[in-house]
Amino acid sequence: MAASHEKTSSELRKVLILKPPNVFLVHENLFCQRFHFVKAWESPLPTNQFLSTYAQSIEALFCSSLTCITADILSLLPTLRLVVTSSVGVDHIDLNECRRRGIKVANTAEVFTDDVADIAVGLLIDVLRKISAADKFVRAGLWSSEFPLGYKLGGKRVGIVGLGSIGLQVAKRLEAFGCIVSYNSRTKKPSVSFPHYADPRELALNSDVLVICCALTDQTYHMINKEVLSALGKQGFIVNVARGAIVDEKELVRCLVQGEIAGAGLEVFADEPNVPDVLLELNNVVLSPHRGVYTEESFWDSYELISGNLESFFCNKPLLTPVLDE
Amino acid sequence: MAASHEKTSSELRKVLILKPPNVFLVHENLFCQRFHFVKAWESPLPTNQFLSTYAQSIEALFCSSLTCITADILSLLPTLRLVVTSSVGVDHIDLNECRRRGIKVANTAEVFTDDVADIAVGLLIDVLRKISAADKFVRAGLWSSEFPLGYKLGGKRVGIVGLGSIGLQVAKRLEAFGCIVSYNSRTKKPSVSFPHYADPRELALNSDVLVICCALTDQTYHMINKEVLSALGKQGFIVNVARGAIVDEKELVRCLVQGEIAGAGLEVFADEPNVPDVLLELNNVVLSPHRGVYTEESFWDSYELISGNLESFFCNKPLLTPVLDE
Repeated sequence: MAASHEKTSSELRKVLILKPPNVFLVHENLFCQRFHFVKAWESPLPTNQFLSTYAQSIEALFCSSLTCITADILSLLPTLRLVVTSSVGVDHIDLNECRRRGIKVANTAEVFTDDVADIAVGLLIDVLRKISAADKFVRAGLWSSEFPLGYKLGGKRVGIVGLGSIGLQVAKRLEAFGCIVSYNSRTKKPSVSFPHYADPRELALNSDVLVICCALTDQTYHMINKEVLSALGKQGFIVNVARGAIVDEKELVRCLVQGEIAGAGLEVFADEPNVPDVLLELNNVVLSPHRGVYTEESFWDSYELISGNLESFFCNKPLLTPVLDE
Repeated sequence: MAASHEKTSSELRKVLILKPPNVFLVHENLFCQRFHFVKAWESPLPTNQFLSTYAQSIEALFCSSLTCITADILSLLPTLRLVVTSSVGVDHIDLNECRRRGIKVANTAEVFTDDVADIAVGLLIDVLRKISAADKFVRAGLWSSEFPLGYKLGGKRVGIVGLGSIGLQVAKRLEAFGCIVSYNSRTKKPSVSFPHYADPRELALNSDVLVICCALTDQTYHMINKEVLSALGKQGFIVNVARGAIVDEKELVRCLVQGEIAGAGLEVFADEPNVPDVLLELNNVVLSPHRGVYTEESFWDSYELISGNLESFFCNKPLLTPVLDE
């Protein structure tokens, strides 16, 4: 029963959700105290019909990166003025169409940066030092004399592909382990002293480890291809916490199977949730189900940021984390 | 066939090994080019009889931490003047008897410091962010929506038990993740600005994570007991890269099973190689078979250091890494 000071559902501002983001499922009670969510996924109607029937006056939409907000979807929402996504990346939203229509877009900005950087370092330690493999080994009742040697972090030349906020946090952490950092990006960053390589193949040639932290764009699709992997070489390791499609996954799997690179820590895959079967059998990989942002703390922070963006919008205040120029 | 410039086995200086250290097994060929090893473990004779028969003129002994060099063993080696261990810790060597007899002792000093610190951080990331669990999850064909949330490293109050060289390296790494470091040691370290707690229970009360890095001594045996674990509490995590017996393992297992602490990353156990069966079934632990120093690079460095100590001894030069005052 609602306390007298709480608003009833009909007094709350409406927010459309097509498919529920995980942060919504985790903090649904809190979200629903502040907004009235129109839940397309609970309706038996096809999405188009649901939107035509129930969403013609909707002003705000909340989505995750798993829901594509296409021009077609947007055309069914004539009054839409805001898209809030629970992700950092916005490649699932037709930004051009939003811009054209004057629809604002908000993302989760830096909320998940540290968690993703932590997972990148965790996967690297794990694959170099064989921690997941060791855990399986002990649980199978075995002990260390039969366990293979791993590799030291200190002194490893780590090439960071994409030195945005996540890449910078990975660099900061790995420097504390004695790693030697350099990076690839389209343009050299004047504020950064790490060596810059404009060509990812050049970076790979000069690295023992590549950590992929860049956004997926037309330019970065399959950027880590056969040539780059070959330049990384037999002693080389790769960690991907960005998007699976930045790497030519078929080529990566072939290199891992044939020992043309030494190992990989993979948080993302080309066709999630499908992970290539052959990876499941390899000892030189550590696999993670795209959950780099899955911490209690970040889910709380993102709940607060998403709610804050929605409140700001409904109060005609500037968004907390706008993606497009306002 | 030995090249003409190589010494034959009989020209090399003799070094006794009771049980082969792992670094000896990995680099046996190289070791055997420089010294003539007397291998007690290959003889069918009981150790005492072997030593009385074949080791009466032995001056140097090479051991790992798994071979106890007791006063009884030493009494069978009347000409012994050096014990070199492949470990950092020397609690397996009767140092008083060595001192009394004028037997020198050398350890591996700082060779393994970074590797052990790396494993400590790796285990902490692993247990907080559920990396080993995630790897098992993906390999079982599952995907992330069902996977539980982990915990963020940033902001965690990490109490380091024993701020020696390993503890300091753990602190340096964890500061880069945004952890807040304090420590316990008998005496406050004047060169260190982290908060000091003389009482491990006080440290635990003020920590979200304890990382055990101290030596095993009479004073530290079972130092992490029921009271300390209770002070750490239900949200608390523990990482042990030191020695199993520093923790009251039965109490630790009980706390993990009953949810009285949140989780553990364990590299060492009270009765290795025996790991308590109940740990093998828990999801909130990451288990590692005491292999914090198992890297290609450290094994190479320790081969060089051990050989260097033996060479120095036979040339009447100062040891590279003496444990006792010379």
